Order: sequence, then C-alpha cells, then structure tokens
Amino acid sequence: MSKSILLLAALAAVAASSVAATDQELRAKAAAVGLQALPYGPQQPNDNAMTREKIELGKMLFFDPRLSASGVISCNTCHNLGTGGDDNLPTSVGHGWQKGPRNSPTVFNAVFNNAQFWDGRAEDLKAQAKGPVQAGVEMANNPEQVVATLKSMPDYVERFGRAFPGEADPVTFDNMAKAIEAFEVTLVTPASPFDQFIEGNDAAMTTEQKEGLNLFVERGCTACHSGVNVGGENYFPFGLIKRPGADILPPGDKGRFQVTNSVSDEYVFRAAPLRNIALTAPYFHSGQVWDLKQAVAVMGTAQLGTEISDEEAGKIVAFLESLTGELPKVEYPILPMETAETPRPQF
Amino acid sequence: MSKSILLLAALAAVAASSVAATDQELRAKAAAVGLQALPYGPQQPNDNAMTREKIELGKMLFFDPRLSASGVISCNTCHNLGTGGDDNLPTSVGHGWQKGPRNSPTVFNAVFNNAQFWDGRAEDLKAQAKGPVQAGVEMANNPEQVVATLKSMPDYVERFGRAFPGEADPVTFDNMAKAIEAFEVTLVTPASPFDQFIEGNDAAMTTEQKEGLNLFVERGCTACHSGVNVGGENYFPFGLIKRPGADILPPGDKGRFQVTNSVSDEYVFRAAPLRNIALTAPYFHSGQVWDLKQAVAVMGTAQLGTEISDEEAGKIVAFLESLTGELPKVEYPILPMETAETPRPQF
Repeated sequence: MSKSILLLAALAAVAASSVAATDQELRAKAAAVGLQALPYGPQQPNDNAMTREKIELGKMLFFDPRLSASGVISCNTCHNLGTGGDDNLPTSVGHGWQKGPRNSPTVFNAVFNNAQFWDGRAEDLKAQAKGPVQAGVEMANNPEQVVATLKSMPDYVERFGRAFPGEADPVTFDNMAKAIEAFEVTLVTPASPFDQFIEGNDAAMTTEQKEGLNLFVERGCTACHSGVNVGGENYFPFGLIKRPGADILPPGDKGRFQVTNSVSDEYVFRAAPLRNIALTAPYFHSGQVWDLKQAVAVMGTAQLGTEISDEEAGKIVAFLESLTGELPKVEYPILPMETAETPRPQF
Repeated sequence: MSKSILLLAALAAVAASSVAATDQELRAKAAAVGLQALPYGPQQPNDNAMTREKIELGKMLFFDPRLSASGVISCNTCHNLGTGGDDNLPTSVGHGWQKGPRNSPTVFNAVFNNAQFWDGRAEDLKAQAKGPVQAGVEMANNPEQVVATLKSMPDYVERFGRAFPGEADPVTFDNMAKAIEAFEVTLVTPASPFDQFIEGNDAAMTTEQKEGLNLFVERGCTACHSGVNVGGENYFPFGLIKRPGADILPPGDKGRFQVTNSVSDEYVFRAAPLRNIALTAPYFHSGQVWDLKQAVAVMGTAQLGTEISDEEAGKIVAFLESLTGELPKVEYPILPMETAETPRPQF
C-alpha cells in the first residue's frame, strides 16, 4: 500500500470516527431525555396472558363490523391498519354518519401508552376496546347485544373457548376486550430509521433527521414527548404557554377535566405519542391541522413559548418522519358465518 | 383368508361400486344441466392482462377508503372479504348513511358472471368498479377527484406506472378500474365440497347434500342456476310463475327494465350466482329474506310454480351449503401515505 493511500485511509478513519462520535453524542443526548428504541415484537400485558388463539380471535373481532349495532363499523374502520392505524379524518365517522368528538389515535404501538384515549380515561387497551363499541356516535352497541351476536356464531363460541380455556362461560364482553387487546399488543412497528439509529446504525438517519432530533431535544419537545412511544406517557395542558385558537383547541372540550373534574385538568390531554406521526394526519385531538410542519410550529408557540423557524420545523419534521416503523403484516381474517340467531343490523 | 372374510370383502366391493355408480350418475346428471367445477386460480380477462403489479395495486385500491369522497368507504366495506364478499345487510350503507337500492352481491367468483350488478348493466368487473365509486348513495366520488387523490400520493403514481407500463399518463379512472378488476379476478373460491365431488371425490358431499343436488336438478332449479357459477349467466323474470309479495319484490324496482327500457324486461334480474350463498344472507335483490330455506321455498312458488316441502328445502339448502369454497387468503395492504395535495374528505 502506498503512503498516500495509507494517509487517505487514516483520514477516512478519523472522519468516520468523528461522525461516529457526533452520532454517539446524539444517541447519548437522546437517551438522557428518555428516548429509546421500540422493542421488537409484542409486549406481555400483566393481566392478560397472550396466546396464539387469543391473538387470532382478537384479530377477527378487530375486523368484525358485527360488533357494531349496524353491522357496518369495525375497530378497523377508525383504526385502519392500512392507513397508519387511524382513519385520516379530523374526527371519525360513526353510527348514523355522526362525527365523533376527537381525532382517532393510531392503534399502532398503543400498548406503550400509559393510558388510552386523548384524556387517558381507559387504563389499558382492554378497557379502551369497550368504549367505542358502546359509544352512540361510534358503534352504538351494548354488551348484551354483542355477546348475543358472538354466541350466535358457533365458530366464535369455539374460539372463545380455546382462547379462554377452563372458563365456564367464555363468551363475555370482558373477554372480547381481552382478545382485542391481545391482538392490538402485536401491532408494534419496530425498526424505524430512528430506532435503527438508536441501535447503533449511524447511517439509518439522514443528516437532516439527526439535526431534527438534536433540535427536538434542545428545544425541549422531549419534556412531553419522550419514552418508548415518544409521548403517550403523561398529561399536559394544551396551551401551557399560549392557548391556541378555538379551531385547534375548541373551548367545549376540556380534555382530562371530563375524567377527573379537577380544575387543574382543564384542557389537559395526554401528550400524543409521535411514532408513525407522518402517517396519521390530521393532527391534535381536534384533527384540525393537516400539515405536520404547522403542527410543530403550533407546539412551539403553545407549549414552549418559542417561535420555531420554518427551517427548524422542517428539520424536526424530518426527524418525526424517521419515527415511521415497519408496519405489521396482517392476513385479513375470514369471519364466522351468521346464523338465524344472529341479531339483525339496526340502523 | 377364510371364505367368510372373502365373502364380506366381495359384498363390500359390490356396495362400494353401487354407491360409486349412483355418485357417477349424479355427477353425469349435474354435468348434463351445465353444472361444473370451479377452476383453480384466476381467469385471464381478454382485454386486461394480469400482472403481479396490477393485482397488487388493485388490492390496494379495493381496500382504500380514500376512493370515496368521505374517505370512509372502500370497496371492501360492502364487499367484505371476511364475510362472504358482501356486507350481510339487506341493502348497503353508503355516503351519509344512505341506504342503497339493492343487496350487495358477493365479489367472490364474480368474474364468472356474464355481466355485473343485479340488472347486468356492467359488462365486466372493470365497468362495475366504476359504478359504486361514483354513486351518490355509495362512495359519492367522481373520476376527477379520484384521479387527483391517486396522483397526490407518489407511491400510487409509481405503482400505476409499473402496472400500466409504457402509458404516458397511467393514473386514470379507467386504469383504476382495470387494476381493481385484476385483483377481483383472483377472488375465486375453489374446492368446495360440491367441486370436490364433481372432481370425482365421492366422499366430499354428504348423502343429504347429494340428495339436495339431485332435487336441485330434478326440480329444475338449474334452468336458471347453472354453469360454473351456479347462476349469474342469464336474465329471468322474478315471479315467472307467481309474483312474490312487495316486501320481496318491491314494485318500484323494475330490474333490467331500467337498463333496456323494454317492457319484457320488467322485474327481470340476473339469476343470482349461488356459490358461497350460505355466507351471504340476506337474500334476493331486496335483501329481505334472511333464511336460506325460506329463500328456496320462495323460488319454488315464484319461479317453478311448485311447493317445495320443508324436508326437500332442507336438502336443497344442504346442497347449497356444499357450494361454500375455500376463501382466498389476503394480506391486508399497507396503503400509500397522503400528502398536502391529497383532496380532503368531504361529508
């Protein structure tokens, strides 16, 4: 090897190590504020043992429109696994074409949120699953009718028996929710560019995305959006520094106040988890902002009391785009056949 | 081997051959009236070359609710691949929760129908696919808006380019329909017990199902319900012998008359294809009969001018249940991401 080639190689090594050092610093900086890689594969809820039978049953229930009174709306209608785990609408459309009060959150990685719904009123996914089924503006059904529907189909009865072995009466509304939780727990999206970067792959993120991550930490976004789900861990007032306009923060929706009745919880919401955020426009609980860069700017003025420049917002958006992970491959389920005993659709 | 065992074996052989002869006769009888096994795998439409890219694109479009004005309704909403390729409603629910005029037919094996819709107004699946997208009571969209939606998403633009190579402007409403047709052509359900029986497997159908098949031929059901799709081949007046009640045959819907304006086509409909009929209650274009046995009885009085006894109807239903085939396994598609250019949902 000639001297000049040796010199080039040495320079390249220095350059690489310098980049690596910077990347390593950025990684340490992100870790210091609680950002972390998404685990691969499903988590085990403490009180709901995961089994193949339960997950498969939960998948069927998730896609079954007959959980709704009309027979038209399934969990997947508003948490569409093909479009980011949400419905890409400002607020969802439900029974009778009614509009729901808040934007549908993604089901992907929802298991990592500390609680479910924008106001955290459900402590876990199985508690969450019971809500929309019964909400008049969503699926407009009730537990008795759901159980009658499920019990009318022998294939479901058999599958509930296998998913909840040893139970005398396995087809219950609670077990429906547990099965749906078991399926939803599998809906994780690992290996995003950000995760691969955190794992040690310097090339996984672009320079712009790394600059965005650095800004995301520096500007204090991680005060609310941190942890494994880059949010979803705690509650904060929307408009901490400056309340946004009534279009973005409608005065009628007081957020967590409706759960706790505590004045300090007025306009308090669970910080949005930011994984796959690029797939789930429009943004905020009101679903009134379609542009992610605009959403970043709103957060700057409302939560941080700072003007985030267009250039900086662009970099932060680039970082947010690096949070899009690998979406799970799901085989569309063949659902049990209705019988004469199946309750008829109600409109 | 002892003489008695030899005798038993000989008797068993005679018995088996006698059953086989009956089965062979039944098979010949079915073939004589045009019943036949479903081919395995997709058919090739004459004017729409099937390619992997086109089928995959068609699957995405089939499941994409953004083909509708509201962003809520996809082809799969009314032709749900998990529930028999239809929606199990009397008539479908569409834009603004409006009810459609007729029962949604199954998409499974629809490629084998001579024409599409209950009145045959679309000559093939690609012509059919354009209908619901534009119908005000269904997806309420228009071609310009659909094309704008598709062109707003780079992943779709790229996929249309690969599915329709060499075309200067591949993202068109016509090509959308062609891609959907290519996917739908793959939605065949071979290897039903009936098909396996026709293939030569005597044990594939039960005795009751065979008796039902025999009755189905003997009573003349095959005059309308024959061919590869056990129907779907030609047009017949509903109420040929005796007009059913206005609940089942609403006077306002004159069927094929609305297509041809010929008086002889009043209350004429395409004979329903009967494959997977057990999965697609409720029945008839009005969707007013939930019980398959009752539907068989209605056909007896209305079309054949004969009372089919409860026992006979039960056997015919058993035969119809033998027409349920293997439903295709479909991986739920991950859909392209919306952009700032994507038209917003309209309610």
